[in-house]
Amino acid sequence: MNDTRFSSAIHTLILISESETAMTSEQIAESVGTNASYIRKLTGLLKRNGILDSGRGISGFRLNIHSEELSLKRVYEALYETEHVHLFDLHQNPNDGCIVGRHIKPVLTELFAKLEAEAGQALRAVTLADCIETMKTRIGRENK
Amino acid sequence: MNDTRFSSAIHTLILISESETAMTSEQIAESVGTNASYIRKLTGLLKRNGILDSGRGISGFRLNIHSEELSLKRVYEALYETEHVHLFDLHQNPNDGCIVGRHIKPVLTELFAKLEAEAGQALRAVTLADCIETMKTRIGRENK
Repeated sequence: MNDTRFSSAIHTLILISESETAMTSEQIAESVGTNASYIRKLTGLLKRNGILDSGRGISGFRLNIHSEELSLKRVYEALYETEHVHLFDLHQNPNDGCIVGRHIKPVLTELFAKLEAEAGQALRAVTLADCIETMKTRIGRENK
Repeated sequence: MNDTRFSSAIHTLILISESETAMTSEQIAESVGTNASYIRKLTGLLKRNGILDSGRGISGFRLNIHSEELSLKRVYEALYETEHVHLFDLHQNPNDGCIVGRHIKPVLTELFAKLEAEAGQALRAVTLADCIETMKTRIGRENK
């Protein structure tokens, strides 16, 4: 059930943003604690969405969007290939013969869409730069 | 990956709230479109949290909390046996030898906790009565 795509991708993006030299998928994988092919899967999705860039004579990746303009909502959209933050699944076979069973799907679809839109707003409010800032504050505290 | 527990439980609670006679797990299962043992698993969790009541000479379940006071946050807590709405999983093996790897876990833990608290607030703002109200509006429109 564990899905660490989002978490691994934020780690990857912080590395790419903060590294002085372009990092390869092997180097990223070593820091994230996974294998390079998994990182290439994530970077592939991030490239397709225009978040990352690679090639053009350099080896490794670079950010295509300034970290202050890169919201976690966009990262989520790239990784899950959807504009909707997914929270809950609908049960698929309610009984049409029952009045509640007949109306439950639109009721829950509307409710879940509202909750998911709110979760999307929360993700839109956080940028990669915010994550980096939080990390730098922690690193600064450690070095005191 | 599909988890329809929350969706099925809301359906179940609407039935129990709106039925004139106490409904059994078999009757609920028929409307939800699942089997009675799955419904008993859900009702067991809802009973443990004090949301439902059963026994005491009646067959079937009844709500132990007024639908206007029963938030979906409490339903979620009962079903998942946690006070936290779970959104994202952390990758487990970041590399301590890298400065980003060493600090990513607390940074993402803090971020995810904030997002999950916001999702929890959104669930707290919706009651079972709200869901019933939405359904009644739809049924009213259908009957026009």
